Amino acid sequence: MTLTRAQATFPPPIVAAKRWLDGVTFPPDRPLINVSQAAPVAPPPPELRQVMADVALNDDSAHLYGPDLGLPALRAEIAAQWSAHYRGTITPEQVAITSGCNQAFAAAIHALTGEGDEVILPTPWYFNHKMWLDMCGVRAVPLPAGEGMLPDPDRAAALIGPRTRAIALVSPNNPTGVEYPGALVRAFYDLAKSRGLRLILDETYRDFDARSGAVHDLFTDPDWPETLVDLYSFSKAYRLTGHRVGAMIAAQPLLDEVEKFIDSVTICPNQIGQHAALWGMRNLGQWLAGERAEILDRRTAIEDGFPALADQGWRLLGLGAYFAYVEHPFTLPSDQLAQRLVAEAGILLLPATMFVPEGEASGQRQLRIAFANLDRAGIGTMFDRLAGLAL
Amino acid sequence: MTLTRAQATFPPPIVAAKRWLDGVTFPPDRPLINVSQAAPVAPPPPELRQVMADVALNDDSAHLYGPDLGLPALRAEIAAQWSAHYRGTITPEQVAITSGCNQAFAAAIHALTGEGDEVILPTPWYFNHKMWLDMCGVRAVPLPAGEGMLPDPDRAAALIGPRTRAIALVSPNNPTGVEYPGALVRAFYDLAKSRGLRLILDETYRDFDARSGAVHDLFTDPDWPETLVDLYSFSKAYRLTGHRVGAMIAAQPLLDEVEKFIDSVTICPNQIGQHAALWGMRNLGQWLAGERAEILDRRTAIEDGFPALADQGWRLLGLGAYFAYVEHPFTLPSDQLAQRLVAEAGILLLPATMFVPEGEASGQRQLRIAFANLDRAGIGTMFDRLAGLAL
Repeated sequence: MTLTRAQATFPPPIVAAKRWLDGVTFPPDRPLINVSQAAPVAPPPPELRQVMADVALNDDSAHLYGPDLGLPALRAEIAAQWSAHYRGTITPEQVAITSGCNQAFAAAIHALTGEGDEVILPTPWYFNHKMWLDMCGVRAVPLPAGEGMLPDPDRAAALIGPRTRAIALVSPNNPTGVEYPGALVRAFYDLAKSRGLRLILDETYRDFDARSGAVHDLFTDPDWPETLVDLYSFSKAYRLTGHRVGAMIAAQPLLDEVEKFIDSVTICPNQIGQHAALWGMRNLGQWLAGERAEILDRRTAIEDGFPALADQGWRLLGLGAYFAYVEHPFTLPSDQLAQRLVAEAGILLLPATMFVPEGEASGQRQLRIAFANLDRAGIGTMFDRLAGLAL
Repeated sequence: MTLTRAQATFPPPIVAAKRWLDGVTFPPDRPLINVSQAAPVAPPPPELRQVMADVALNDDSAHLYGPDLGLPALRAEIAAQWSAHYRGTITPEQVAITSGCNQAFAAAIHALTGEGDEVILPTPWYFNHKMWLDMCGVRAVPLPAGEGMLPDPDRAAALIGPRTRAIALVSPNNPTGVEYPGALVRAFYDLAKSRGLRLILDETYRDFDARSGAVHDLFTDPDWPETLVDLYSFSKAYRLTGHRVGAMIAAQPLLDEVEKFIDSVTICPNQIGQHAALWGMRNLGQWLAGERAEILDRRTAIEDGFPALADQGWRLLGLGAYFAYVEHPFTLPSDQLAQRLVAEAGILLLPATMFVPEGEASGQRQLRIAFANLDRAGIGTMFDRLAGLAL
């Protein structure tokens, strides 16, 4: 009996990590610090919640199927804002709305690859990308991070083979937080273009990039649709996590293929979430700027506090968006360490074993801290607990 | 270059059919009769819309990620209602909530099959099932309908080979509307069980079955988890189409595999829709009884009116749930006929070519009419237009 598609991959890391909490009690004076999942833990602002309520009560069409590829007004809004921000030409027909950004990636893979094909994925990778490729019978070709946790286009070029169909980047990166320099993203784009591949660029965390303006120039190439597949999530910017709304910006003919996937899996994205995303794009720019400032301040708090940990042998490998990626000083492998941290430090974080190919040495030394939900005081408490570890 | 997964299948039929409307104008005295899609065209009852608004405004957690496999309370409610209705034992751990019933099928296939495996599918089939199998590299083995548009377990037995993993039934059936007799469903179950296969039973239209009580006894077998994968949709019963909520009832270990799929594609079902489904299950029984009575009355209207069409050579092949499946009397192939009906009769329906393997003769003679949104007067008008056709 052959393996099923699902058997070809590992259990969801977040779900597995949550199980570590089973049976552990956290004293009131040392509550759990959960830095495992990269998602808002607070609801959207009241005005946006009111919009959703109004849609539920007053918009009949929001309760029916919408178009497979999303609400035309939302597609148009993305096309307009993306065109302005990235100084390129993106039409509404080049935008698809998806049930979260994971679905955008999943649909892109169905549109771009077949059984036995290959996609180059920098490591550490976003585990859901790896899981989906496993389940699609597509080989994830690991491209180990180099200096500054950045992937190297020359090393990528050496990995391209006859079955390579795409290179998938995440910037700002999950799990490392690293913001890829525009020139680096451009180098990957040029590589993909010259070799007839697609560059999938997951920009889920773009709204929390510390740099201002357009952080890459890919859309300024009028031929971008031949090469670029850009992905986005509404979960982080407007805290719409529970509503499952994402987007893909790609060549229109590719979206015809994406439509087959969406039609067969979810038919259309849920409608209230789409209306909320549209209202957010039109009205929450100022609010989002405040959100970004807060996350950037927390990032600074990580930088400010880290020397105390560095004194004990910790290293900060990457920092940005929601994430700090760190090397711990213990002989204990990171997956065992992470489980012990639950009971011994009241901290839930993910070991790098969840982000690298099985057996890769770096996995045992590194950890991901999704710090975005911790304020300065919380970050201080977390650092105190980590500094006080006796293992 | 190999085909991509998406290239291995055809474009979504509903989307293709909608394009037939482009450029056609419908005079005010002969508006379009759209019987192409099997979905409510009216919103849920006001109380349910109020529940959704209240959740959006007051339930903070509804805006965050929920568990991959759905809200525990909704899983428990399904387990309890299914156990009572089908007189079996179903635990909450054997229930997964999905982003619509299509996703339940898609996840089941990833959990049960690998590249090159086979699933037996009675024809005419539900096109999204066929599309998904195509995209998964799974061969859909057609089992042509026999007498009364029913599949024959003996013919199915003869189609089982070493790569067969499952048999997938839809009852009440889409596209034919036919309600499979309990004994027939049981015979398929026994066949699957004896051959070590899974029986996938899509009961999306169960709430509109003309029979009362449990229409099959599969859950009375204490070993049902070894064989049965039961699928359900909240889109029809409570008109939650735009909110994408479905369910799968299956063995708990299988749901661990399903969880990998859901985690990678949508992470979790959207939360407002789940809360609405739960409230509907707890409070809308009486309302749903009225909905069912209305659909059954429309079904009777089809039966009552059909003799006028039968006089002109039409045949009613199947009737039930949302659907009438008919044979037309014209020499014109059904796909051409369906396109001409848009302009010449103001009717949008789907040709059977969309429900059978390419080249199968029945496809050219048959049509699906999703009548559920037409009241008695509308059904009369549709019949008048069809009877008046001069082709």
